[in-house]
Amino acid sequence: MNSTAQPHSHLFHRVSTLPATPDPRPEFALIDWLRTQAGAHSEIPCGIGDDCAVLNPGNQQLVICKDVLAEGTHFTAETPPDLIGRKALAVNLSDIAAMAAQPMAAFVGLVLPRSRGRAFAERVSEGVLALAREWNVSLAGGDTNSWDGPLVISVTVVGTLPGPAVTRAGALPGDWIMVTGPLGGSLQSGRHLTFTPRISEALALRELVSLHAMIDLSDGLAGDLFHILRASSVGAKLFAEAISIHSDVPADLPFTDRLQHALRDGEDFELLFTVSPADGSKLLALPDLGTPIARIGEIVAGSSAVLIMNGEEQPLSPAGYSHSL
Amino acid sequence: MNSTAQPHSHLFHRVSTLPATPDPRPEFALIDWLRTQAGAHSEIPCGIGDDCAVLNPGNQQLVICKDVLAEGTHFTAETPPDLIGRKALAVNLSDIAAMAAQPMAAFVGLVLPRSRGRAFAERVSEGVLALAREWNVSLAGGDTNSWDGPLVISVTVVGTLPGPAVTRAGALPGDWIMVTGPLGGSLQSGRHLTFTPRISEALALRELVSLHAMIDLSDGLAGDLFHILRASSVGAKLFAEAISIHSDVPADLPFTDRLQHALRDGEDFELLFTVSPADGSKLLALPDLGTPIARIGEIVAGSSAVLIMNGEEQPLSPAGYSHSL
Repeated sequence: MNSTAQPHSHLFHRVSTLPATPDPRPEFALIDWLRTQAGAHSEIPCGIGDDCAVLNPGNQQLVICKDVLAEGTHFTAETPPDLIGRKALAVNLSDIAAMAAQPMAAFVGLVLPRSRGRAFAERVSEGVLALAREWNVSLAGGDTNSWDGPLVISVTVVGTLPGPAVTRAGALPGDWIMVTGPLGGSLQSGRHLTFTPRISEALALRELVSLHAMIDLSDGLAGDLFHILRASSVGAKLFAEAISIHSDVPADLPFTDRLQHALRDGEDFELLFTVSPADGSKLLALPDLGTPIARIGEIVAGSSAVLIMNGEEQPLSPAGYSHSL
Repeated sequence: MNSTAQPHSHLFHRVSTLPATPDPRPEFALIDWLRTQAGAHSEIPCGIGDDCAVLNPGNQQLVICKDVLAEGTHFTAETPPDLIGRKALAVNLSDIAAMAAQPMAAFVGLVLPRSRGRAFAERVSEGVLALAREWNVSLAGGDTNSWDGPLVISVTVVGTLPGPAVTRAGALPGDWIMVTGPLGGSLQSGRHLTFTPRISEALALRELVSLHAMIDLSDGLAGDLFHILRASSVGAKLFAEAISIHSDVPADLPFTDRLQHALRDGEDFELLFTVSPADGSKLLALPDLGTPIARIGEIVAGSSAVLIMNGEEQPLSPAGYSHSL
């Protein structure tokens, strides 16, 4: 994590647990309380607590997600405005991908800084629109205001499900843990502004295998793995040497430091998923999905996670591992 | 309009046209451009330009709306936090009502001021939740962040349609123009924080008559009437003496000033709709819908609007009327 951006805290559905230090941010404790207050609805099989909500009005299954990005947290005053708009849509498309859904429509809410004028607003919007066109997503509505404060942009995306929703809750002991792409260094390199949401990969995976559980990596591999483990009531073993570390992580660091970047930097926006060993083998035998897929671990019974490195087990927490070297 | 709050500018779908003065806010010009860029989608029969978007995935008709409220524009630093949360949901429920739809699920995005701590965040959330419970709306997801700036709250609401969507585009020459409740003075009195969204009324009206066009009054009667007129390619006559002026408008003002308040204060969140004269008569003959309904004018051919006062026609613009007294 660098000084200019922090991992995007999707706090209704992605509580970034950093257990060693109490978090001063007011939203963290709020979430647990909100989940208890949300209200059940017979046509909402999945509400707060996953990458998207699943709505089931009539016989149609829809997914909906919403993220809010604010200057100083998800981008800076120096971030090119088109990349701000792009990221605001892309993080939502990544949530849609995490449910193995197809995005359909986007709604954009802008609070624009008056001082930056119309050109700035248009460039932010152009960033949203360009990515929306790439994925055949229609800008269907929204709301725009201006004020004397910095930019806030909120995007809501609605998607359709070609089959059952893939939630975080279906991982089974024995499952292989798999991940798309290499991890780490996204915030430092700026990749968090330009990543490709893994929609194509998610839809291809859905066709090829039975996806038991899936999440997109926003909080970091370790933190997001724990979201799956808790939702599925299972534990995990991760194979340290199998984790592909992104070239955005400095090559001259010791392996254990590079590994920590992959485990906890966040904002990789790759897909972490679990499948049966038979389906996992099938995926590894395929020539290519466009993005490399690796087997990085295994789901086990229990509720704890370990990292296997040099043949030895190290405890793994949502914040990474505590190495004993 | 007082100094502490301005009418809520739902600018993707409610361009507050104040033609006499060019508007310095960057979002105004942005909207026309965005509408041209939005992208068509076969399953989105109604996108930017109405109170909600209408989505038609599969055979299910859904409506979706999204509003963003920011401190200094829609509420102040002194507004009780539960009323901020309440308003953020209520303005969306009012948009859902304007389509004659039933709200189902809400998604809340918060950017919380760090300085105000958890109690503030909880009180904002409690305001959302209390109103959500009243209308059986489930809080299905969202996103929470904190920063050093003031509060921003964005709410998205999904609703279902018990029949065809009622848009702004169906008004016909000869239609009666009708409105629920008395108008004016909402921002001055604080009613904009505590109003009841007209969901029950909208659903009852849908059952009773054929609603040709409908909108909720956020920009003011005159401004919102013009949204219907433009969307329906028609003109209108308004009957000044038939417009019910709210008791929030000071009683000691001259009638013409009180009328201007009713025409342009905004944030009444009542329903403005048009029906055939037969249906209009039917509604006036009913004992009660809970909220009084008045006939305040008539749709005519053309594209202009007049106000009939003391038997004389005055030109009517989205900003109200220019009286020649």
